Amino acid sequence: MGGSSNRIDDFSGVIDLESVVPRRVSPPPARGFFQALRQSLREVFFPDDPLYQFRGQTSFRKLVLALQYLFPIFQWGSQYSFSLLKSDVISGLTIASLAIPQGISYAKLANLPPIIGLYSSFVPPLVYAALGSSRDLAVGPVSIASLVMGSMLREAVSPEEPALHLQLAFTATLFAGVFQAFLGLMRLGFVLDFLSKPALIGFMGGSAIVVSLQQLKGLLGISHFTTKMGLLPVMESVLEHKPEWHWPTIAMSFSFLGFLFAARHIGLRWPKLFWVSAAAPLASVVLSTLLVYLFEAQKRGVQTIGHLQGGMNPSSVSKLLLHGQYLALAVKTGLVTGFLSLTEGIAVGRTFASLKNYQIDGNKEMMAIGLMNMAGSCTSCYVGRELQRRLENGGVEYSDGGAVLGTMLFLLPLFRCTPNAVLSAIIVAAVVGLVDARAAARLWRVDKLDFLACLSAFLGVLFFSVQTGLAVAVGISVSRILMHVTRPNTAELGSIPGTQSFQNLVHCGETRRVPSCLILGIESPILFANSTYLQERIMRWVREEEERVSTTKDYSTKCVILDLGAVTAIDSSGIEALTELKEALEKRSLLLLLANPLGAVTEKLYRSDAVELLWKNSLFLTLADAIAVAVSGHWPPTRG
Amino acid sequence: MGGSSNRIDDFSGVIDLESVVPRRVSPPPARGFFQALRQSLREVFFPDDPLYQFRGQTSFRKLVLALQYLFPIFQWGSQYSFSLLKSDVISGLTIASLAIPQGISYAKLANLPPIIGLYSSFVPPLVYAALGSSRDLAVGPVSIASLVMGSMLREAVSPEEPALHLQLAFTATLFAGVFQAFLGLMRLGFVLDFLSKPALIGFMGGSAIVVSLQQLKGLLGISHFTTKMGLLPVMESVLEHKPEWHWPTIAMSFSFLGFLFAARHIGLRWPKLFWVSAAAPLASVVLSTLLVYLFEAQKRGVQTIGHLQGGMNPSSVSKLLLHGQYLALAVKTGLVTGFLSLTEGIAVGRTFASLKNYQIDGNKEMMAIGLMNMAGSCTSCYVGRELQRRLENGGVEYSDGGAVLGTMLFLLPLFRCTPNAVLSAIIVAAVVGLVDARAAARLWRVDKLDFLACLSAFLGVLFFSVQTGLAVAVGISVSRILMHVTRPNTAELGSIPGTQSFQNLVHCGETRRVPSCLILGIESPILFANSTYLQERIMRWVREEEERVSTTKDYSTKCVILDLGAVTAIDSSGIEALTELKEALEKRSLLLLLANPLGAVTEKLYRSDAVELLWKNSLFLTLADAIAVAVSGHWPPTRG
Repeated sequence: MGGSSNRIDDFSGVIDLESVVPRRVSPPPARGFFQALRQSLREVFFPDDPLYQFRGQTSFRKLVLALQYLFPIFQWGSQYSFSLLKSDVISGLTIASLAIPQGISYAKLANLPPIIGLYSSFVPPLVYAALGSSRDLAVGPVSIASLVMGSMLREAVSPEEPALHLQLAFTATLFAGVFQAFLGLMRLGFVLDFLSKPALIGFMGGSAIVVSLQQLKGLLGISHFTTKMGLLPVMESVLEHKPEWHWPTIAMSFSFLGFLFAARHIGLRWPKLFWVSAAAPLASVVLSTLLVYLFEAQKRGVQTIGHLQGGMNPSSVSKLLLHGQYLALAVKTGLVTGFLSLTEGIAVGRTFASLKNYQIDGNKEMMAIGLMNMAGSCTSCYVGRELQRRLENGGVEYSDGGAVLGTMLFLLPLFRCTPNAVLSAIIVAAVVGLVDARAAARLWRVDKLDFLACLSAFLGVLFFSVQTGLAVAVGISVSRILMHVTRPNTAELGSIPGTQSFQNLVHCGETRRVPSCLILGIESPILFANSTYLQERIMRWVREEEERVSTTKDYSTKCVILDLGAVTAIDSSGIEALTELKEALEKRSLLLLLANPLGAVTEKLYRSDAVELLWKNSLFLTLADAIAVAVSGHWPPTRG
Repeated sequence: MGGSSNRIDDFSGVIDLESVVPRRVSPPPARGFFQALRQSLREVFFPDDPLYQFRGQTSFRKLVLALQYLFPIFQWGSQYSFSLLKSDVISGLTIASLAIPQGISYAKLANLPPIIGLYSSFVPPLVYAALGSSRDLAVGPVSIASLVMGSMLREAVSPEEPALHLQLAFTATLFAGVFQAFLGLMRLGFVLDFLSKPALIGFMGGSAIVVSLQQLKGLLGISHFTTKMGLLPVMESVLEHKPEWHWPTIAMSFSFLGFLFAARHIGLRWPKLFWVSAAAPLASVVLSTLLVYLFEAQKRGVQTIGHLQGGMNPSSVSKLLLHGQYLALAVKTGLVTGFLSLTEGIAVGRTFASLKNYQIDGNKEMMAIGLMNMAGSCTSCYVGRELQRRLENGGVEYSDGGAVLGTMLFLLPLFRCTPNAVLSAIIVAAVVGLVDARAAARLWRVDKLDFLACLSAFLGVLFFSVQTGLAVAVGISVSRILMHVTRPNTAELGSIPGTQSFQNLVHCGETRRVPSCLILGIESPILFANSTYLQERIMRWVREEEERVSTTKDYSTKCVILDLGAVTAIDSSGIEALTELKEALEKRSLLLLLANPLGAVTEKLYRSDAVELLWKNSLFLTLADAIAVAVSGHWPPTRG
């Protein structure tokens, strides 16, 4: 062909084709069906290869490792020393001083008797200490799960039936535990990833405000309060009951709120003074109880907790409702609260692990939390999760448990005079840190869609319900992934002169168009959800290229080359779409060549019939190979 | 650095770094927020650029184009000729001979009076003729939507209330139309893509079998029949009522079934004899009616349609139930049947369009179908969709409508003696083609996951219900996409000696490992759903590489390079994960460099704070650039 050498000259300034010996793509090494299945199952369920320590060890060592794997207590138990015990006692007392008032407050949030909160701060930590692998977490009830449990149960059961409410709470805890342990055992921990962090930020912020709004009852000393959770009904109810506002209570509320916020600020500002913010809640409780007792403020209308039954966790096995009309409600509540308590717990654990450079097996952790909740549901506890422990030393939760036990056995009668207002103030001070406006602002700057997910979750919780917010958050997170696949980006590529590299023609100023070739980068897998779109979009690129050529009198287009470098997968619809595209382009006398396929795509193309018929001669290792073949007249190659 | 030149020598056989002048990535041209928003909205909603014809036209021409766009009748109306009319009349009569018996049969499938099926074959085609853009489709009721509507309504309304049933069918049709038109108007047609083709194959196959099973009542002449749809209850009911089997009916059923299958086979085998299979249903009806009439078979227990009220479509506006307890049911039924009738209709339309090389605007098509159903719901019709028209000439549906109208006005009384058995046989012959075992086998060969989706949808329809099957099909399709993103592929890359190209080390035999560099290809967007996974997976690659190095005494690893060529997007969680990864690797004295980013990723990295602090000096245009910098000791570059 006389024209072909002439044509190559036109490319000299654009792309260096001299040294190119066009290479086709050879099929990847064949794998059997079961081998492929085994490999992909391993990647899905055991990506972190959790058993790698076991490889090449003796049987005895394997047994020791297995015991340590299942019960981490064996790992640190042998290294435990007196000095560790001492620091553990100190850290345990500090944690307990947080756990006792928070336990009582959160139980109120879940519409449960305050003692349940204390029970829940006692048994679960002991279970977790033996099973859990994170050394930096404390365990106990938590605000959002408490709120959700309370609101979900209250929707179906009137507050006049406290016994039924309690039974349902234990049953829901059991199902939360079963669900968590099941997820862990089946290594399905990745479902938690579908609640994206931006959505979580919005969700937590909204929940914190909803929780705080509920505290207006205690803070203002109102006796009649709405059972609804949304911003509007609560504000309406608060303003409607303005005559009930009890000014002495309000004065006390806000002074203690001020004290707690000041302590929190000190703890954040000077990390060494963390104990100030940790001790503030208990100090508030003690101080306010003393004040009420001394001034007999109860008689002046300040609401207090009232009589509390002391003692250790009684068994609650007989209270589990495993049949009957409320079973479905208990299961649903268990699933939602179990999911919620995991989501945040695992995230916090991972952050600590990455800070201190040790690895957390999320799935194992879930099993530990699940077993903890299952044990809890039989010992009068409700859904708990890991709580962040901000102290520097690791260790056991036992001393924490000891302090809580002491409280339950001996100090409970003293809480009789503790004012509700202070408990509310403690909750508000505890949850306000969850409203993270700075993180939301950062999202707006980096990624508008992330910000949208965050905002929707926030507003969903605030104006509708916590469950709605959760559903919105998961929905937006998931549809973002779907949208990304359904409407993938396509870009026209040009070569960087003097190299064999190609870049986006619009983004990269150095690039030059390759004459008579339309090079398109497809930036997504080609799946059923986008195969039609991609077909139409590529035809539009071709139409626009033809318009450009006829306007600028450029070389007429001979060839469309798809860069598959970012096509991470292809399914049967995708192969069909490419085949249809090839036929449609051939009707316009255009070649369709494919270049730069990844392994998985090559494998799939070779396995279908299509490659034999259509693609064998059109699939190239790199873009330069495809261009060299397309412009030098080597195409179509002779058979033989 | 004395060692650096020595080091480069080691690379001579592996990668050609001599000519590399390391290039960093410059940020893409800045776009404002609203410009970016506008561009991405356009890509999402107007990917096919439907208004491109309008650009640069005069106002008058724009008006004409707009009219033709909204009412395609103006486009072909002006070119209509006598010869086109003639061929249209012939094709219309052929279609009508299919539409009349199928219309009656499908109405029975939906538990509606047979006349509704005829009404539905008359008005909708007229509306579609004016609005629809596909010239190769006929319009009428369809088996699966009929079945689903019948079964969904029967779940809530007992068959003893035919009037209510009819009202609900019209109301559901209205909502189906509203839903379809809404999707089209909002240009949300892509939601249909979430029902993948493999899932659709399984769903259609299962539905066809369920529809055929329902016909056993007619075919066997049973009078008591279950109202359930699943395979097991139907077979149980059929065997239980064996004493009711009516052998004369069975004999007639199977002879006509044989005739219809033979005609179908002829039509498929010799496309020129298509009219044989098209005329067979009407011929069966006429023949069987004559037989029953002549031999007075009714008196011998052969069930017939019975008396039919003739006449034109009455208005059914007053029958629409727009409030009350059944509204939710009607809306739900409308959504499901509307979605179903669109899914297949659009797919068929697109296949025709790509065969004949014209383009179909799916969203416009949906508006046409939606308006058609809305008009239908007011004129005693129920949900219809486009039906495939296998004839070669294009044209109007009017002559089809004419034949149906004639039937309704004059011929209906004659159907009195038509045996139910023959109607059942017509349905079975019509739906059996939907069971596509060959396509399923192809799926198994190409893509096991596609096959799994197909099989699950099939079994879901067969053993549970049509809605379950639909949910399973959509669920599997969507979770496949999610799974692909959640567990992305990562691969170790090596260079192809003598080039600057890189390929999978395992798949491509020619590749060689680059000394002291671990090059990883990340084959997916880095989003919240996989950022934790990728972090852990990359750390595992690093651990395994260190093990390999210590076993083989290879050059120790200095540098981890991530090839972002297939990373099509990154969100805030992804950036955070990369940053954490960089810190974790630095603790192990390893560099982390990024290469080959796509435009969208570069843009996002530059917009976050991270790039300033961490990435500016670690982001390279190609892998070769990154390697050259990493091994030549230029890193970290001096500030200036």
